Amino acid sequence: MLTLHDYMDSGNGYKVRLTLAHCGLPYRLVEHDILKGETRTPAFLARNPNGRIPLLELEDGTCLAESDAICWYLAEGTPLAPADRLARAQTLQWMFFEQYSHEPYIAVARFWKHYLPKLTPLQEAELPGRMEKGYAALGVMEQHLARQPFFVGGRFGLADIALYAYTHVAGEGGFNLDAFPHVNVWLSRVAAQPGHVTIDHKN
Amino acid sequence: MLTLHDYMDSGNGYKVRLTLAHCGLPYRLVEHDILKGETRTPAFLARNPNGRIPLLELEDGTCLAESDAICWYLAEGTPLAPADRLARAQTLQWMFFEQYSHEPYIAVARFWKHYLPKLTPLQEAELPGRMEKGYAALGVMEQHLARQPFFVGGRFGLADIALYAYTHVAGEGGFNLDAFPHVNVWLSRVAAQPGHVTIDHKN
Repeated sequence: MLTLHDYMDSGNGYKVRLTLAHCGLPYRLVEHDILKGETRTPAFLARNPNGRIPLLELEDGTCLAESDAICWYLAEGTPLAPADRLARAQTLQWMFFEQYSHEPYIAVARFWKHYLPKLTPLQEAELPGRMEKGYAALGVMEQHLARQPFFVGGRFGLADIALYAYTHVAGEGGFNLDAFPHVNVWLSRVAAQPGHVTIDHKN
Repeated sequence: MLTLHDYMDSGNGYKVRLTLAHCGLPYRLVEHDILKGETRTPAFLARNPNGRIPLLELEDGTCLAESDAICWYLAEGTPLAPADRLARAQTLQWMFFEQYSHEPYIAVARFWKHYLPKLTPLQEAELPGRMEKGYAALGVMEQHLARQPFFVGGRFGLADIALYAYTHVAGEGGFNLDAFPHVNVWLSRVAAQPGHVTIDHKN
């Protein structure tokens, strides 16, 4: 059976849990508290030298890191992953957009504001720029979703899962989504998909 | 013919140029000076609402953004992209590692130190943390390359291209690679591949 090393509040982990749920794949969940440094222990670093969850452990012990790579692995050959070459690349485009232009701002602002007892002076100084770039990412999403119901090819897939994970909890980072009506409708559309599970759902 | 919108000093752009060279694909190069805001004009934003190079324009005008998604698109079916499902996911794992745990530190430090006339006080305050995380990424690479000649499956491929781009110019960001002998040998190995082109090479 697959083993998922994860932390329930992680949106990156949630991407994998959502993909597993949509694919109907059973798995064993092993939780690691990132706030207590449980992904930086020698035992964890032996599995992922980059010290991060989520981490998928295959039946033979092989470990795969990076949420989007894990989702890609799980979803290949399923309706979540497009068969068309261009649509596959567009899916990856949005997944890389999420990791580079969305997560470092929206997820990090959420982590700082929602999980840390107090920000450092440097975090306080960085926060306005992170909020600004987070809103810029939401603007790019809004513009795209004004013209189509899902991110790629008119159907629900991996790009939606990748972007849903932290967008649906952006409010915990202090982001107000009122100015992004198409993003809001899309969030509802993703949550209404058959097989959907919430971020706190344990298999 | 394919059109690549790019900025020659960009490592992200170089990934695409290197992939195009290894695939032997002809293309038209259109340069945009990011230092002069040429990727934030209305004309450019109509092509990529996220306002970034590299951007691949297909013959029918379809535009594909995000360097790693473009490389994936170009290399599918070539020896640069593994055929095996796990090796494909491992390739993506390293490409996402590069965009999340490497580029924001090594490429950004290079951009700040090598291209900006003067850092803002916030950039000065952020720099030590960025350097530390850049060295951490190099440490993860060193550990992996101590055991194998290339990042995935024992052969040169997309993961190597993605990580070579900014690692080979890390010195311009003030990174000293002396403590990473396996990274250095790997850099030489990548540069010795048939079909290799340098970052300043124009097709």
